[in-house]
Amino acid sequence: MALSEQQKQEILEQQTQKNTTKRVISPKLEEILYEAVPVLDHGFVRVVDYMGDDSSIVQAARVSYGKGTKKVSTDSGLIKYLMRHRHSTPFEMCEIKYHVKLPIFVARQWIRHRTANVNEYSARYSILDKEFYLPSKGNLAAQSTSNRQGRGKLINGQQADNILNILKKDAEQTYANYELMLNEKYDGSTINENNKGLARELARMNLTLNTYTQWYWKTDLLNLLNFLSLRTDSHAQYEIRAYADVMINSLKKWVPITFEAFEDYRVGGMELSAKSKSVIQKMIKGQKCDFESSKLSKREWNELMESLGFTERTL
Amino acid sequence: MALSEQQKQEILEQQTQKNTTKRVISPKLEEILYEAVPVLDHGFVRVVDYMGDDSSIVQAARVSYGKGTKKVSTDSGLIKYLMRHRHSTPFEMCEIKYHVKLPIFVARQWIRHRTANVNEYSARYSILDKEFYLPSKGNLAAQSTSNRQGRGKLINGQQADNILNILKKDAEQTYANYELMLNEKYDGSTINENNKGLARELARMNLTLNTYTQWYWKTDLLNLLNFLSLRTDSHAQYEIRAYADVMINSLKKWVPITFEAFEDYRVGGMELSAKSKSVIQKMIKGQKCDFESSKLSKREWNELMESLGFTERTL
Amino acid sequence: MALSEQQKQEILEQQTQKNTTKRVISPKLEEILYEAVPVLDHGFVRVVDYMGDDSSIVQAARVSYGKGTKKVSTDSGLIKYLMRHRHSTPFEMCEIKYHVKLPIFVARQWIRHRTANVNEYSARYSILDKEFYLPSKGNLAAQSTSNRQGRGKLINGQQADNILNILKKDAEQTYANYELMLNEKYDGSTINENNKGLARELARMNLTLNTYTQWYWKTDLLNLLNFLSLRTDSHAQYEIRAYADVMINSLKKWVPITFEAFEDYRVGGMELSAKSKSVIQKMIKGQKCDFESSKLSKREWNELMESLGFTERTL
Amino acid sequence: MALSEQQKQEILEQQTQKNTTKRVISPKLEEILYEAVPVLDHGFVRVVDYMGDDSSIVQAARVSYGKGTKKVSTDSGLIKYLMRHRHSTPFEMCEIKYHVKLPIFVARQWIRHRTANVNEYSARYSILDKEFYLPSKGNLAAQSTSNRQGRGKLINGQQADNILNILKKDAEQTYANYELMLNEKYDGSTINENNKGLARELARMNLTLNTYTQWYWKTDLLNLLNFLSLRTDSHAQYEIRAYADVMINSLKKWVPITFEAFEDYRVGGMELSAKSKSVIQKMIKGQKCDFESSKLSKREWNELMESLGFTERTL
Repeated sequence: MALSEQQKQEILEQQTQKNTTKRVISPKLEEILYEAVPVLDHGFVRVVDYMGDDSSIVQAARVSYGKGTKKVSTDSGLIKYLMRHRHSTPFEMCEIKYHVKLPIFVARQWIRHRTANVNEYSARYSILDKEFYLPSKGNLAAQSTSNRQGRGKLINGQQADNILNILKKDAEQTYANYELMLNEKYDGSTINENNKGLARELARMNLTLNTYTQWYWKTDLLNLLNFLSLRTDSHAQYEIRAYADVMINSLKKWVPITFEAFEDYRVGGMELSAKSKSVIQKMIKGQKCDFESSKLSKREWNELMESLGFTERTL
Repeated sequence: MALSEQQKQEILEQQTQKNTTKRVISPKLEEILYEAVPVLDHGFVRVVDYMGDDSSIVQAARVSYGKGTKKVSTDSGLIKYLMRHRHSTPFEMCEIKYHVKLPIFVARQWIRHRTANVNEYSARYSILDKEFYLPSKGNLAAQSTSNRQGRGKLINGQQADNILNILKKDAEQTYANYELMLNEKYDGSTINENNKGLARELARMNLTLNTYTQWYWKTDLLNLLNFLSLRTDSHAQYEIRAYADVMINSLKKWVPITFEAFEDYRVGGMELSAKSKSVIQKMIKGQKCDFESSKLSKREWNELMESLGFTERTL
Repeated sequence: MALSEQQKQEILEQQTQKNTTKRVISPKLEEILYEAVPVLDHGFVRVVDYMGDDSSIVQAARVSYGKGTKKVSTDSGLIKYLMRHRHSTPFEMCEIKYHVKLPIFVARQWIRHRTANVNEYSARYSILDKEFYLPSKGNLAAQSTSNRQGRGKLINGQQADNILNILKKDAEQTYANYELMLNEKYDGSTINENNKGLARELARMNLTLNTYTQWYWKTDLLNLLNFLSLRTDSHAQYEIRAYADVMINSLKKWVPITFEAFEDYRVGGMELSAKSKSVIQKMIKGQKCDFESSKLSKREWNELMESLGFTERTL
Repeated sequence: MALSEQQKQEILEQQTQKNTTKRVISPKLEEILYEAVPVLDHGFVRVVDYMGDDSSIVQAARVSYGKGTKKVSTDSGLIKYLMRHRHSTPFEMCEIKYHVKLPIFVARQWIRHRTANVNEYSARYSILDKEFYLPSKGNLAAQSTSNRQGRGKLINGQQADNILNILKKDAEQTYANYELMLNEKYDGSTINENNKGLARELARMNLTLNTYTQWYWKTDLLNLLNFLSLRTDSHAQYEIRAYADVMINSLKKWVPITFEAFEDYRVGGMELSAKSKSVIQKMIKGQKCDFESSKLSKREWNELMESLGFTERTL
């Protein structure tokens, strides 16, 4: 990631602000506020604003439960209780805003999270940066043969070089033609004084989906947790996971108690269906329980054993 | 409005916070942060947190439009442009949180604004305060005879006294019976040692709709403007309007430029239908235009003339 | 529940409709369409419209996955797969609309489900029916002593009679005074020709929270499942659970495959935290695992054992 | 637009369905149900399901207003009243579902309407069709010189040919390389038996933004009106307007009364700010009113005069 001089200057100015407020602050998050954390080859994530901290969740819950919360004596205990029982509304009382630079195909997955506010760089108004995502060799995976949407083994050697070469050349060519149609270089210089420039809203259609865009993305803590739970999952595409992994770090700094509860109850946990629960109960009681008697489909049985970390042999 | 000693203490502690932040602040809003502004006889509104200010709207818009915004040279000009053309997403980049004490029948109207986060005092967990709304005599209006949902002339004299007496007595009686069924006074003392207390979630059903409740209510600036636009309107019920009027003041302090644009383009403005527009065009050209030739319904014609401030005589 | 003659007539007319459509239909749901199923003492739930069926979920999923869905050969297998992996968007492709009559305190819980469309009977425009909820003796529970929001043992004998008597008398008195302030009986007759009637929007505040209201409530299948999952849960207040239980039946008729998956993966299932999962794993392996070594709080340990159906003795 | 044989067959089967239902139907919409209406060069829009009609809006409004609606005697009068006063919730009681084939850059604009349900063809699971949008010569506009986001004059002659040639060649080349990287043709045949295929979720990033995708898109009537109001506007990009224009036709068939009200109050109408209103009032009274005395910005003044159809000369 190479920030422009102007961006560096802007970030520096933001970071040297020192305002006095009566609002609660999150000291650890303040430390990294505005900082652009690199993601992928040209992307970044930076927290640009936030509202509330762990205590805001507690405050909202205590308004709800009134004197009824007295029994849960600590903030940490209360937040865990809320998370465990999916009492979700107090988590909506915190808000965070990110500035993100990301490839368009990642943006298309991200935007499916509807309960968020977004302002994206508009290619109707402005010319997009000449930046596109190229996977590292360590991420150049073949289509999975067992999972319709996943990645399988790495592609190596000459084929890998060929693929990276294609991605690079096609992105460069389509961008060069984008400028040609616009009759304008990204730096603003005109290409041919005798020509008009094609409307930007049209010319952009020639760009490839790995072109970078950027946006401000704002959401509440509950919806951030949903986003992170889905997008840090091993089934999420690597490229969006790379963003989620960086955002997990900001979560940890912002609301450390919530982060801990999230790790315990969401990330590290699992869901059991009625049938799977019945399997578990039998296993614990030491009763015979194999696939045949489980009433699960083969796929479910395998998923269950895998989630529990059991293999044929360990059972 | 009488705050409890505990509430006064809590507010004082909140107001004496002095934290250092890199976030933008809204200086005028900081001044009134946490302050409980009285509304109706026992209610209040107080801002307890916020995120962003006018500059956050501009920042988000400039990310969208990129270099394309250079032409609109001032922040004020840009915000007015956004408001005028209903480019609404940048206004979603600011967030505010209120703590509100309000009668249940007002809460029932308020909650219909769905794009907000809410934590309400739960009468399943805790006992509600012994506080209920009684209208002032100046608000004791008869049902309107012309408008099915509105208020007409004031009710005076003995009838007014009778009504206020009924409201007061019924609220007091139902509350006393609420305590009796709970077998517990609001202060926590038991009424009859030999009795059980009815479940709180059941006992509450005996309370009248003017009983006060409270909640934390958090929304973004765009949805706040929608709320204020609808709830400060003269057709809104007086009691919810009283809250909206106080909140308008916090809007003004928080985002003064947006407030000004809101006043010009939303509050003071009007909408014209295609047919009404045609009427206006004729009028300006000095062409004959009366109800008969307007193609408007009588009701629409009257609404149009009223909005423009014309009476039979002035035309 | 006593339907008025007018309501009975309206339902009859709706049920005798026989239209031809190219849309998919749900034959079992058509059978009970418009039928008012009684809930509590005066409430009802009736399905008044719907869109789509199980096949609509499959259709939407197949558009998403394209040829990728071929491997999941049956509709039932696909719907189960979607439910298990919380691939939720295809379930949003079905929509249902209910007409519900319910006490106001139930409506206040219900409305917290924001992703729905609602049109409620307006007490600003019209006079509310003289109908209020009185619990049956079998539901007159004391406040739970172990759970801050729940119900404990039944209240019996004289105390139960007293409570029911209070609820009935207070509701009747406040309603009579409502009419008196309106200066109008529910049947439209004027009470005192010399008086004005208080504005309806004001008079309603004298009613108790067990007064019945009604609304049209429309939501998509995904949000209906969320609603049902929360509101059929044993921790939900009995009165809203009574509605959810009736709605479960319409779910079963409407989308039988989804219903089955819902029962297996949501209703009958359970969630494990990371720590609880670790406990389970040890138990299955026959390793020593008791509360002390579990790292769970006492409360979590008890919840886990209860969910698994274990008592001190069975372990 | 060329439908595949399989698609044609599927549509034919859908259209020959003849089910009996007790639900209300919209006869005119039934006539075009499932029909794929061509948009742009390879896109289409087709209505695949719906719920409710004009009468559903009236029904919901009458539940809200109860006896209070008696005064508005006709359905048409009531719907117009609701539209005029932005009583929007009854319009949410109708729902419609479209199947749309559209270029990705159009999909990116469309998805910003958040209050809708979407299932899009997933390029993680399946290979995208070899179809991309090429503008017709009549739409090959230069960037506007007066409006930062709009289109100006047409580009003609050799430059137009060059641009179309670029768009075509780049799309074809990037698609061919997409297949090469996948090591699989769209028809499923393998390209090189010795190579692996790159994961689909990666290969897709090489496609240009004019590649076609498709989705099911479902929304309620209120949000459809918002979508159409914004996207049929002359400031909307031509390519999304082409879709909105086709959808307007389905609106007209589905809910003819609502359509008429929409045309009068939304499409053909205009908004006046407080300052603009003051200008209008002066003009009607025949008072001197020019730009200098108007307090409007030059831009606003021009917009106002243009909306009213006045030019320097006509005034």
